[in-house]
Amino acid sequence: MAVYTEVPDEALGAFLAEYDIGTLLSYKGIAEGVENTNFILHATTGAYILTLYEKRVAEGDLPFFLGLMEHLASRGLACPQPIRTRAGAALGRLCGRPAVVVSFLEGVSVRRPGTAHCRALGSALAGLHAAGADFAMRRPNALSVAAWGPLFAQAEAQADRVAPNLAARTRQDLAALEGAWPTDLPGGVIHADLFTDNVFFLGEAVSGLIDFYFACTDAFAYDLAICLNAWCFEADGAYNRTKGQAMIAAYQAERRLEPREVAALPLLCRGAALRFMLTRLVDWLNVPPGALVRPKDPLEYDRKLAFHRRVTDAAEYGWSAPGAA
Amino acid sequence: MAVYTEVPDEALGAFLAEYDIGTLLSYKGIAEGVENTNFILHATTGAYILTLYEKRVAEGDLPFFLGLMEHLASRGLACPQPIRTRAGAALGRLCGRPAVVVSFLEGVSVRRPGTAHCRALGSALAGLHAAGADFAMRRPNALSVAAWGPLFAQAEAQADRVAPNLAARTRQDLAALEGAWPTDLPGGVIHADLFTDNVFFLGEAVSGLIDFYFACTDAFAYDLAICLNAWCFEADGAYNRTKGQAMIAAYQAERRLEPREVAALPLLCRGAALRFMLTRLVDWLNVPPGALVRPKDPLEYDRKLAFHRRVTDAAEYGWSAPGAA
Repeated sequence: MAVYTEVPDEALGAFLAEYDIGTLLSYKGIAEGVENTNFILHATTGAYILTLYEKRVAEGDLPFFLGLMEHLASRGLACPQPIRTRAGAALGRLCGRPAVVVSFLEGVSVRRPGTAHCRALGSALAGLHAAGADFAMRRPNALSVAAWGPLFAQAEAQADRVAPNLAARTRQDLAALEGAWPTDLPGGVIHADLFTDNVFFLGEAVSGLIDFYFACTDAFAYDLAICLNAWCFEADGAYNRTKGQAMIAAYQAERRLEPREVAALPLLCRGAALRFMLTRLVDWLNVPPGALVRPKDPLEYDRKLAFHRRVTDAAEYGWSAPGAA
Repeated sequence: MAVYTEVPDEALGAFLAEYDIGTLLSYKGIAEGVENTNFILHATTGAYILTLYEKRVAEGDLPFFLGLMEHLASRGLACPQPIRTRAGAALGRLCGRPAVVVSFLEGVSVRRPGTAHCRALGSALAGLHAAGADFAMRRPNALSVAAWGPLFAQAEAQADRVAPNLAARTRQDLAALEGAWPTDLPGGVIHADLFTDNVFFLGEAVSGLIDFYFACTDAFAYDLAICLNAWCFEADGAYNRTKGQAMIAAYQAERRLEPREVAALPLLCRGAALRFMLTRLVDWLNVPPGALVRPKDPLEYDRKLAFHRRVTDAAEYGWSAPGAA
């Protein structure tokens, strides 16, 4: 979370002259976004976010991400809306980086979500899946099951330095998941990274979803599995079934899970946990000297995996058939 | 420039409940302020800055800084205005740190000020000196001439690693300044750190002065000398007399410099340059491993000192008697 690129006032002035957003009143680099440099802009027409894409976001993916945000915003979803220049471009360049201006969303990220937040998130997630249904572009999930083996190969030799027997546990997870990973579930656009810092609330209502830079085309229920992992575990590591129940029920009120999705939920949750454990593990073992960003703890997800390995039924996550008492 | 302290939403909510600023809409950590952690807040009543004071600001000095900002704002100066809680407190505590909420000022810092900016700054500086005239509190300048010897003592042994003969040059400056430093010049509250990043503009008009955490009681002309150093040198190291002339003339339009101030100006400019060279040099030689802040270059001020050593007359800075052709 840092400002990787300094933007001089002259360069910003020249860049913004292409946009119909009125006069620039102020801009501040904000400590948000692990991947990019972000500024909050105040202009006479309102507040905006200016994003400069640093090297971790592939430039070739930007048309998908920006197109998706435009599509979702046009469907009424509360997400950052790319602002186009007078010439009609959503993507520009500033200080040598690809850069965009998007609408600013008010709202506060909740670090320790309660049941009401989980319920609201379930509903927002279903809304996102519905709003993306007719989005024409596709982007494969580069961090799905096929990527986990190669990720683990980068970390395997050093994994037991991070926790005893982590390598052996991970080999077992990989074997279990690679053999059984479902490929025929209902799907479409998923967010794939809907952690609490990517969801804004005003009170207990969702006011915005942000950071679509892992969005891709994959199973809807996998997105739900990511959210169950990110939102429904307590700080002590225990799964909170009440929160899971609230999230799943709210999701199903908008889109009822099919039986095959329900059956796959334990596997999807275990896979989602493995995906975040692995990327965090690789980052943890590869912190560059002088890094501005502290890596996230892979063992948080190792503990979640211990829970998922024992689950055999979606009911343990709080699923129940809609309409059931 | 970093967010040193993470502020959870629950802690912020409890803190802000004491203030009459309406409902919190959003907050973002901003990459501004070398000394403190700052957030931009949007609330239903407008935008604010939340500052958490990290250890480099002495807590005992906060009543002076906050009292000064309140005083200046009440005199109509565009500076951050501390917001008081319902109980009347300007200073609170958040996440174990002293913390304040101040009004947000629109405006953009100009990295390469033009002559019009220097003119506007001269006028704003005189306005600051006038607005502070009846401020009752006093704070000695902890970084004036008496501090330079001890600062140099911390760096002397390693100074020549930074530039050849830097130690010898600095010894000569110290000797020249310590013997001749004026102590009887007109004075009062000065900002003492009015670099371009502490001044906001809307167009060519000053819209705000910020960062009063070096403010103290000292000679007015020394504040002007700091600004001439910070604003009127070009990137190639040359002093721009046109800019100096614009700044000094605009200052004098509000408050005419006395003959003894004019006579002292070369010495004051040299002293101001030495002060920033020395603090930068000490910081440069003491960068902690893993530091988030890149130290500023002391040699920028070493080059300015080379100019000041040769100046014998305030006219070389662009001073002329008001009313002279």
